[in-house]
Amino acid sequence: MKKIITNGTIVTAADQYEADILIEDGKIAAIGERLTADGAEIVDAKGAYIFPGGIDPHTHLEMPFGGTVTVDDFETGTTAAAFGGTTTVIDFCLTNKGEPLKNAIKTWHDKSRDKAVIDYSFHLMIGEVNEQVLEEIPLVIEEEGITSFKVFMAYKNVFQADDETLFRTLLFAKEHGALVMVHAENGDVIEHLVKEALDSGKTDPIYHALTRPPEVEGEATHRAAQLTGLADSQLYVVHVSCAEAMEKIADARKKGYRIYGETCPQYLVLDQTALEKPDFEGAKYVWSPPLREKWNQEELWKGLANGQLHTLGSDQCSFNFKGQKELGRGDFTKIPNGGPMIEDRFSILYSEGVEKGRISLNQFVDIVSTKIAKLFGLFPQKGTIAVGSDADLVIFDPTAERVISAETHHMAVDYNAFEGMTIKGEPVSVLSRGEFVIRDKAFVGKPGAGKYLKRKRFADVSNSAKKRVTFQQ
Amino acid sequence: MKKIITNGTIVTAADQYEADILIEDGKIAAIGERLTADGAEIVDAKGAYIFPGGIDPHTHLEMPFGGTVTVDDFETGTTAAAFGGTTTVIDFCLTNKGEPLKNAIKTWHDKSRDKAVIDYSFHLMIGEVNEQVLEEIPLVIEEEGITSFKVFMAYKNVFQADDETLFRTLLFAKEHGALVMVHAENGDVIEHLVKEALDSGKTDPIYHALTRPPEVEGEATHRAAQLTGLADSQLYVVHVSCAEAMEKIADARKKGYRIYGETCPQYLVLDQTALEKPDFEGAKYVWSPPLREKWNQEELWKGLANGQLHTLGSDQCSFNFKGQKELGRGDFTKIPNGGPMIEDRFSILYSEGVEKGRISLNQFVDIVSTKIAKLFGLFPQKGTIAVGSDADLVIFDPTAERVISAETHHMAVDYNAFEGMTIKGEPVSVLSRGEFVIRDKAFVGKPGAGKYLKRKRFADVSNSAKKRVTFQQ
Amino acid sequence: MKKIITNGTIVTAADQYEADILIEDGKIAAIGERLTADGAEIVDAKGAYIFPGGIDPHTHLEMPFGGTVTVDDFETGTTAAAFGGTTTVIDFCLTNKGEPLKNAIKTWHDKSRDKAVIDYSFHLMIGEVNEQVLEEIPLVIEEEGITSFKVFMAYKNVFQADDETLFRTLLFAKEHGALVMVHAENGDVIEHLVKEALDSGKTDPIYHALTRPPEVEGEATHRAAQLTGLADSQLYVVHVSCAEAMEKIADARKKGYRIYGETCPQYLVLDQTALEKPDFEGAKYVWSPPLREKWNQEELWKGLANGQLHTLGSDQCSFNFKGQKELGRGDFTKIPNGGPMIEDRFSILYSEGVEKGRISLNQFVDIVSTKIAKLFGLFPQKGTIAVGSDADLVIFDPTAERVISAETHHMAVDYNAFEGMTIKGEPVSVLSRGEFVIRDKAFVGKPGAGKYLKRKRFADVSNSAKKRVTFQQ
Amino acid sequence: MKKIITNGTIVTAADQYEADILIEDGKIAAIGERLTADGAEIVDAKGAYIFPGGIDPHTHLEMPFGGTVTVDDFETGTTAAAFGGTTTVIDFCLTNKGEPLKNAIKTWHDKSRDKAVIDYSFHLMIGEVNEQVLEEIPLVIEEEGITSFKVFMAYKNVFQADDETLFRTLLFAKEHGALVMVHAENGDVIEHLVKEALDSGKTDPIYHALTRPPEVEGEATHRAAQLTGLADSQLYVVHVSCAEAMEKIADARKKGYRIYGETCPQYLVLDQTALEKPDFEGAKYVWSPPLREKWNQEELWKGLANGQLHTLGSDQCSFNFKGQKELGRGDFTKIPNGGPMIEDRFSILYSEGVEKGRISLNQFVDIVSTKIAKLFGLFPQKGTIAVGSDADLVIFDPTAERVISAETHHMAVDYNAFEGMTIKGEPVSVLSRGEFVIRDKAFVGKPGAGKYLKRKRFADVSNSAKKRVTFQQ
Repeated sequence: MKKIITNGTIVTAADQYEADILIEDGKIAAIGERLTADGAEIVDAKGAYIFPGGIDPHTHLEMPFGGTVTVDDFETGTTAAAFGGTTTVIDFCLTNKGEPLKNAIKTWHDKSRDKAVIDYSFHLMIGEVNEQVLEEIPLVIEEEGITSFKVFMAYKNVFQADDETLFRTLLFAKEHGALVMVHAENGDVIEHLVKEALDSGKTDPIYHALTRPPEVEGEATHRAAQLTGLADSQLYVVHVSCAEAMEKIADARKKGYRIYGETCPQYLVLDQTALEKPDFEGAKYVWSPPLREKWNQEELWKGLANGQLHTLGSDQCSFNFKGQKELGRGDFTKIPNGGPMIEDRFSILYSEGVEKGRISLNQFVDIVSTKIAKLFGLFPQKGTIAVGSDADLVIFDPTAERVISAETHHMAVDYNAFEGMTIKGEPVSVLSRGEFVIRDKAFVGKPGAGKYLKRKRFADVSNSAKKRVTFQQ
Repeated sequence: MKKIITNGTIVTAADQYEADILIEDGKIAAIGERLTADGAEIVDAKGAYIFPGGIDPHTHLEMPFGGTVTVDDFETGTTAAAFGGTTTVIDFCLTNKGEPLKNAIKTWHDKSRDKAVIDYSFHLMIGEVNEQVLEEIPLVIEEEGITSFKVFMAYKNVFQADDETLFRTLLFAKEHGALVMVHAENGDVIEHLVKEALDSGKTDPIYHALTRPPEVEGEATHRAAQLTGLADSQLYVVHVSCAEAMEKIADARKKGYRIYGETCPQYLVLDQTALEKPDFEGAKYVWSPPLREKWNQEELWKGLANGQLHTLGSDQCSFNFKGQKELGRGDFTKIPNGGPMIEDRFSILYSEGVEKGRISLNQFVDIVSTKIAKLFGLFPQKGTIAVGSDADLVIFDPTAERVISAETHHMAVDYNAFEGMTIKGEPVSVLSRGEFVIRDKAFVGKPGAGKYLKRKRFADVSNSAKKRVTFQQ
Repeated sequence: MKKIITNGTIVTAADQYEADILIEDGKIAAIGERLTADGAEIVDAKGAYIFPGGIDPHTHLEMPFGGTVTVDDFETGTTAAAFGGTTTVIDFCLTNKGEPLKNAIKTWHDKSRDKAVIDYSFHLMIGEVNEQVLEEIPLVIEEEGITSFKVFMAYKNVFQADDETLFRTLLFAKEHGALVMVHAENGDVIEHLVKEALDSGKTDPIYHALTRPPEVEGEATHRAAQLTGLADSQLYVVHVSCAEAMEKIADARKKGYRIYGETCPQYLVLDQTALEKPDFEGAKYVWSPPLREKWNQEELWKGLANGQLHTLGSDQCSFNFKGQKELGRGDFTKIPNGGPMIEDRFSILYSEGVEKGRISLNQFVDIVSTKIAKLFGLFPQKGTIAVGSDADLVIFDPTAERVISAETHHMAVDYNAFEGMTIKGEPVSVLSRGEFVIRDKAFVGKPGAGKYLKRKRFADVSNSAKKRVTFQQ
Repeated sequence: MKKIITNGTIVTAADQYEADILIEDGKIAAIGERLTADGAEIVDAKGAYIFPGGIDPHTHLEMPFGGTVTVDDFETGTTAAAFGGTTTVIDFCLTNKGEPLKNAIKTWHDKSRDKAVIDYSFHLMIGEVNEQVLEEIPLVIEEEGITSFKVFMAYKNVFQADDETLFRTLLFAKEHGALVMVHAENGDVIEHLVKEALDSGKTDPIYHALTRPPEVEGEATHRAAQLTGLADSQLYVVHVSCAEAMEKIADARKKGYRIYGETCPQYLVLDQTALEKPDFEGAKYVWSPPLREKWNQEELWKGLANGQLHTLGSDQCSFNFKGQKELGRGDFTKIPNGGPMIEDRFSILYSEGVEKGRISLNQFVDIVSTKIAKLFGLFPQKGTIAVGSDADLVIFDPTAERVISAETHHMAVDYNAFEGMTIKGEPVSVLSRGEFVIRDKAFVGKPGAGKYLKRKRFADVSNSAKKRVTFQQ
């Protein structure tokens, strides 16, 4: 079944032009002026931008945490993502020390199979590095196409790995051309600050932020960067929340280190005062790293514009206020960490970034889709509008204006962190491999339609020179 | 007349994919798999990269300097450019204090008309800012489409403008959405160092470099950056030669200033020791800023890879060794400043950049073409391969290996600064608005075929949000 | 006539201890426990600090400026200085282009002779460097003992020198072992900002500050630093007013450049809002560089504590509000630039610095006296309490508390910029070469008692290794 | 018994002047011109500098390490120190986890009692922080006068503490006004690099350096600095070996953090190539951090001159080449870490620093003595030449020239790391509390004459404002 999308303005990480798109077999077959094809369905996109579908590199769907489980699973999560303009998610597969990695991966396949409405893939957490792990890694890469590995420097006695583990992960990543991801906060310092806070009766949500100050994020980011340089490896710092951490990434990049930074919509538009909301509502804004002082926002925007930060992840990790966030009444450490951002990531970046002149349209596409596809081995199948790529497309109305609200959002969670925020621009229709998932703002997809994506290695896509064509004229 | 270029690998600043290109009326009409069109000429590009034609933002063709004139004019210069993969040049139109700007522009039109084999445009030098100049500027922008203005901080008593002139230029550029270009070296300090050198009998070519140390470039770059920030304007620093100057650009960008840096192939692959060649051959490498200590090269490459530098200009300014460079025997200040780089800019960036893994293929295209088109108001007419853009294309054989030499180059000048350098990759055919200028390495263009390009304002292209489409579904 | 000062706590740039001081012939003859000497007058300093007398490196006494003359001359100015704990001042001798330097020096000797109540010396302004100037410089150094030369980068068309002049001054200073002082603001940019302000009817005192933003000071400071590094010379940046300029000094010092920074009490305790006082009172706070946003104050204090800034000058340059400052009603450019700080420099540094824990007692002495003596060739004759040094001493009551006011100050000017400020600590008695100038808070000195000081070269004092003793045991 | 030292040139951290010194009861009673006192012994110091005795803040005497013990004990070590111009040492008292701190301190008292020929004190190592440790700390401070505590970030599974321990140490130090010392290298990374080296048969001494690159020191220094800032505490970084680590200290100080850096003579004059000496001689230069690339030396000197580094420690930790260093043949990890520097610290700083114009005489005294006394609570009893201070004096001949050699040195160890180095300047006589220890280059002291020094808290000396005198005139 063919489709032709006409009259739209195509936008990629480099280009912006008016042309028609011909879709065949789920892929883009041609782009041109006034295209025609027998039997093709014509989709009029007059006045719309056509963007490549967003890629969310950072989600936690149906994830267990502190005795509870995130509300949104692969069905509700990917449905909300699609509504928001996202056509691919990469979820974090958690592992347990001592257990084979493949067990963890199987668990994640079980969670997602038959549920996802858009394509998806997995990152794999590394909690320890030993002979068994090193043996499994090549298989994980080859067979599962998992080419990114995450290490936690925080959550002492839970997820936290020591520096030797981080360093060895960087070394095997270098060997295999994979990408290391890091949650950069100094868990040791946080551990003590939290104890001190609780000991002195400081139990409100705001103390979640005050016991994880920017310095612990800056410190860990610098440490991870130094280890990356020493290992001559590659690093992706997830959820950069503040100027101090961004600065460390910039410094490392100046030395020529291969380091990339992700920020999240929440750090761009919300600030620390949200944790002080009355009636325990501050708990809705408890995640790690925490929200920061407001001045950091403009610095992060500058970082996105200047290439110090590279991508936007949602860090989707939704817990209901009722029954879940409330577990932390009287003790902020019991508040499940995380928030619901999978749906609004794309539109907030457009509205606050492009509309307000902070980033260009091309940068928007790069940050929300293209660069992510390149870093995580999905390019050019995903992440762009080019002949041969999957027809993952967003037909976006830049003139729409709407208000974000839990009443209208499509996530299963019972609140929205951006409640009441006015947004310019809206995805009207969304296609995954040429099929509508959202059409005229209505869901027309189906659970299980999303496919698991095996990804290429970082090394294969980051330096195109390596796979040069050969001229035979 | 239609053409279809088949079997090539299209590369843009963001994408890389195999597809056919249909050209109609000098523009790209469609890109797709297995395209056909009645009566279209089929051009087989199997094994080749198809790049957007290079844009050279920095040439001095038929330019008077110190009593002599550069050897290459708009005919030989643009012919050589085309052989090298460049399909657009922007030349510097020099002005004289006290004379109307339009006179200078007329002189430049006279030089170029009926000569250029590819499209071209002009930047305009600003030597003073007064009521008359301020009156002419809107006309220059509207009628001539000249939207970039250059100020010299060096060449005391010749081109050098004072800081008030630079500042006022930045202010009117902001007002009109234009871009200011700056030659950043402290001419006052150079003036005295040169006097001191001559007074102590230091007359060899190497003293050209030693009397213009990196500190004078770093200083002027910082000064220009500060003034730009104060004016809230936009600045393009030409021919960044060293780490010190690049650092100042990086610092300013971190503050959010709109500052862009251009480097040149000579700074990437040659170093200061070239000026010490015997038999006065050092004079072949005399230009400003001078070549630097070798370690700077890797820093500049990092800058291109990291986004601290943005474009590559040739600073083409060719003088024969015989009869011109030789004027400076016994007094390095009499050596005409400049070198012949218009032809090799494109290939050196590919060979030393992409082939050696310092930059990606996409970055190559951005640096040599796309970003230049965007900064100087030529995008998307020039600078990319997209439907609707001019069919300025380079069919590039990445497997070719060749040696640069004055014996085989196409410039009129009698030496080549990269003589003997082995290069990987070669433009095989080059099209300008759909017509071959170079075909199978032979010149098939004609003088006068190149058209003068009126350019858009910096402000119109830099923030795409400003010219949003309106959705009407 | 001998004196013994007993029971005090002696404080130097390094030490703090209780001991007696024996003064003979105007010099310190001995320091010890329970000293005695026949016929010596005993001065009981129980409970007091004994500090070396303050040295003010930056005064403009009886200086012509914009058609008027500063109110305080060498008599009232040095009297007020003495009340404040200062026993030496170095005043700026202004020169006129085209006139012999010696004429200017003669004018300054005429102004000061028979008037000063404490010792004094001169810096010399350099407005141009030509053969005549270069010929005079050695004589100025040898015969007049003037070893510091000041260049203005601001006041376009009045004092402003171009970069070539600054660079040549740095070069001759290096040759002769002298120290260059610089007023670092970009006069060209200021010139244009001022024109723009006046053109748009912005004539109030606050526009004095707004037309000289921190960026113009930061720029000029960086430029002067670069030129100093290139000349391998030495530089003293006067009246550093803001973090941005201080940062440039710090960067240059990290590279090993010999650069020193002076700040002034007004920048440590006052801020830009003072220029907005009603009834034209803002004019009282008009000087250059202007007062800055308040946050800069703490940065400057950190700079003093960390060794990024080295000395405190008053930049005394007093104009009456009535009749002088008022000249600028309706046009801020007509407000004579300058303020009255000679009297309070010493006490403000003590009260705000030592008392508030920002600097140590030893640092206080270094900043207000010792380092100045070392940089300007007066050490160890001045600037410390050591055997053989001039008995220039301040008996200081750290427990006194007082309020600064024009009603009680000893300057001739009709207002005080620190009016109403509560100060901890007060000089009770002040000796110049062993003689009381102030005794129990009353003036007992006499005009003409102060002697002109010929100073050593910077090079002679800055590296003590040069004048090593020879061991002969 | 009184002494008068005549004709010398007294040098302190601030002053330099000729005067006599009267010593009574082991203390300085007076300083003056031509002093006399009944029955006083006259010591002629004509042509000599009189310096305050050096203080060595970093020694490991009779210290167990890796199954062996350092060669020099408190007798040979302090004797060699005295010959070298040092009159006080502060040794590191090692602790064992789980054991009371007082046991460790008793062990150290037992080692030193009746042996030291000069005064001495102890720092205390902190390996863990728990309730018992926190209970003991106030006693250690009050009763033992131990006010500095050291944490190791390296030597994994031996001395290494985790970040929580470091952070808690900083917190209790803040509470008690004590100073934290840190060995800053990332032990985790080193652990893995060492394993990798051994696994690939890299066993020579040079691999000691290559498995502890500057990045691991820079990283740990940054981490410690961040934790210090967070704790609002004070930190002293021992043995800074390279520019990268120094830079982190400088950055932290700019933020206003209370951080101090110590370097050692070995890092100022030796470089990494020493570890490549043939016949296993490289082992003589094995210590941690290791020697660095030569270019770091000049950076460290700049740091001392600019106030980025503050003190010089010896890190004396001597092992014989024969029988001890040789344990590491075939496995560099078995080479006992450390070298013999206690004797030459003082003279190398003078010869390479003052004589070569890198630092001034005053800075020399500050770095080798005064600043150490101030940071570690010994001032003004130690660290200066002032009335009331201990008469710890060095009579120093700046004209002497000598060659360092194990054949002539006074340490018990069988080699000298500076063998063959020519030195300008020599301590001729050394007094401890007024008694000669060295007289005319001969040892005249006696074991046990040195007394244990209880020290004041950092907080008591660092801000003199806190113990203000009260004026009672």
